[in-house]
Amino acid sequence: MDRASIATGFSAHLPDWVLDEIVADPAALPDVEDRMRLVHRLADRNHRENTGGPFAAIVSDPETGVIVSVGVNLVLARNLSSLHAEVVAISLAQAKLGTWDLGGRSLELAVNWRPCAMCYGATLWSGVTRLVVAGEGDIIEELTGFDEGPMREDWKEQFVKRGIDVRTDVLREEAIGVFRAYGRRTDTTVYNGRRERTES
Amino acid sequence: MDRASIATGFSAHLPDWVLDEIVADPAALPDVEDRMRLVHRLADRNHRENTGGPFAAIVSDPETGVIVSVGVNLVLARNLSSLHAEVVAISLAQAKLGTWDLGGRSLELAVNWRPCAMCYGATLWSGVTRLVVAGEGDIIEELTGFDEGPMREDWKEQFVKRGIDVRTDVLREEAIGVFRAYGRRTDTTVYNGRRERTES
Repeated sequence: MDRASIATGFSAHLPDWVLDEIVADPAALPDVEDRMRLVHRLADRNHRENTGGPFAAIVSDPETGVIVSVGVNLVLARNLSSLHAEVVAISLAQAKLGTWDLGGRSLELAVNWRPCAMCYGATLWSGVTRLVVAGEGDIIEELTGFDEGPMREDWKEQFVKRGIDVRTDVLREEAIGVFRAYGRRTDTTVYNGRRERTES
Repeated sequence: MDRASIATGFSAHLPDWVLDEIVADPAALPDVEDRMRLVHRLADRNHRENTGGPFAAIVSDPETGVIVSVGVNLVLARNLSSLHAEVVAISLAQAKLGTWDLGGRSLELAVNWRPCAMCYGATLWSGVTRLVVAGEGDIIEELTGFDEGPMREDWKEQFVKRGIDVRTDVLREEAIGVFRAYGRRTDTTVYNGRRERTES
């Protein structure tokens, strides 16, 4: 086996449109609803730009509102199935701070829905101490077709056990509005429709 | 907010020692035990090289044994908590094949233990159709100190429901040997010991 027969690296970067979108935003958003509003804006534009699904995430210091990183789902843009918004935001925060452990800094991860089965674990291992989501529940699967994966009933308690505080229902209706707009499109790519495929 | 205040990209690449380690191996390993033997070799060397935990993974075509990608845990080497061996191997396979969906190719992911809570979802979304693990069970947490995260009791059935066949106990004792050697070290870094931290 040699370098020629296998890939030896992969990378991800924010699309230019993300940087254009946030350039006018302040570096700190002390109100959690303002942070979630930015998440919704990025999620909505992400699917319209066809860089990925209608998902975005922000890592911030909730005390000051200083934004540490922003992420969007880049599955389509980078051809990598693990590049969900949470993984991108967490990885960019860790790249900025130069550590695999965001712990000890009391950072928040804000996302426009409850993390999927993969991002659940990614959040657990990241070191964030607070998770804020716009909502949870099956309506996302109905509106978008995405499979959120098998979650445990006690997912929240498991976060709390590991020192991660969970807050839900921050601008929930606005999240549903984004998913509904996405669901109305007829030209989208559902990149993880395993469930539908195997149950049909 | 501008480019200067946030990180805009991250990347991962296999350490040089991985390429040195596999250069003499054939490009195809048709026997699943040979594939797992290579996984164990890489996992063992990975922790000794201090590039990450004692974990490795391989994506291959199980019909021919052709290796599509090899991955090792790169959490320490790259300072990114999501770079578990499975995520690295899956991402490198997708980078090589130029797609976020390994589905339709009947590819196998071989790992030296049952995936953690995050890699469980990462495997679900990757498109592999077969998961081979050396073993499962809490002994890994006892021997290494790593938290595998909250898993569902029916994790195997959930894989099968999504078209992923699961095979366990391929060179299990050899996997435990690697974890035991890792556990004997007194200079290691457990990068996801949330459970211990919060229960103490």
